[in-house]
Amino acid sequence: MDINAVNALTYEEFLEIFGNVVEKCPIILAAIWSNHPFRGIADIEAQISDFIDSLPESGKEGILRCHPDLSLPAVSLTRDSVDEQRAAGLVCMDSGERTLLLELCARYRQRFGFPFVICARANSVESIGRALRERVNRERAQERERGIEEVKKICSLRLRQILQPHAERSTNTTKL
Amino acid sequence: MDINAVNALTYEEFLEIFGNVVEKCPIILAAIWSNHPFRGIADIEAQISDFIDSLPESGKEGILRCHPDLSLPAVSLTRDSVDEQRAAGLVCMDSGERTLLLELCARYRQRFGFPFVICARANSVESIGRALRERVNRERAQERERGIEEVKKICSLRLRQILQPHAERSTNTTKL
Repeated sequence: MDINAVNALTYEEFLEIFGNVVEKCPIILAAIWSNHPFRGIADIEAQISDFIDSLPESGKEGILRCHPDLSLPAVSLTRDSVDEQRAAGLVCMDSGERTLLLELCARYRQRFGFPFVICARANSVESIGRALRERVNRERAQERERGIEEVKKICSLRLRQILQPHAERSTNTTKL
Repeated sequence: MDINAVNALTYEEFLEIFGNVVEKCPIILAAIWSNHPFRGIADIEAQISDFIDSLPESGKEGILRCHPDLSLPAVSLTRDSVDEQRAAGLVCMDSGERTLLLELCARYRQRFGFPFVICARANSVESIGRALRERVNRERAQERERGIEEVKKICSLRLRQILQPHAERSTNTTKL
């Protein structure tokens, strides 16, 4: 799908296709629709990023709270999250790894009041475990910013998945 | 439900109960969760209002775009919207009224790029028709602000419906 095709969409079609590039926050895409037509994928990405940056700190935490815990059962996840967690190998952890991840995620959420967010597609079970152990000890403001950086990475990959699916095909072939 | 009961909720319970007080914008409730415990219903309402006011103009338009057109079939509406449209008598319009409302709503959306939003519970078919005919000719910035005022009225009534259901019971008995 090229940018001309995106600009030819109705609002309803746009929201249907792009509504979840920031997990469960269709309002962000509903907002940037105010500035269409878009100049390209980089323009869409920049507008999403600027919108997120314009939010008060509570709004950034709100975005993080719209994300699932990493080790939730697939049934409660969006399709996007399932694919991403699969790509990181999170669906084939053994029960010991899963228990450890669950405990760390719970400690993280308990400490900060929002879930641990990481771009699963850019990570493996090992690197996610390492990041969790490190990040769980940081300060709230630091983690709010770090979480939002990860939200933007996830968003960028989801946008590319929609707009340049062939370039991303390789990450899709990861086996269950 | 009193404010102590609200403050005793987990985040998941809070979102389940209050997530739709601003139509399809759970992120707003996810955001104000950063400031819990709440001092009372007025505190929750003020925090939602402040959060909305803090958004860039595109964000306010995004909120309006998360609202349904007034005359959509019930199947595509949230439960809250169905109840509200029923209270305003919108479900028992004759086909002439419905066609006129549809046309005006389409003209409004075409002109402003967001749907006509009005607090249905505070209106009747007649007053909604009057408001539509008036508001469809205004300026976009004016309608953005007016729409957001209506969003806040809807939110206020939804909050009271949850927190003081007995005081609101009378609006619930409207027949189909």
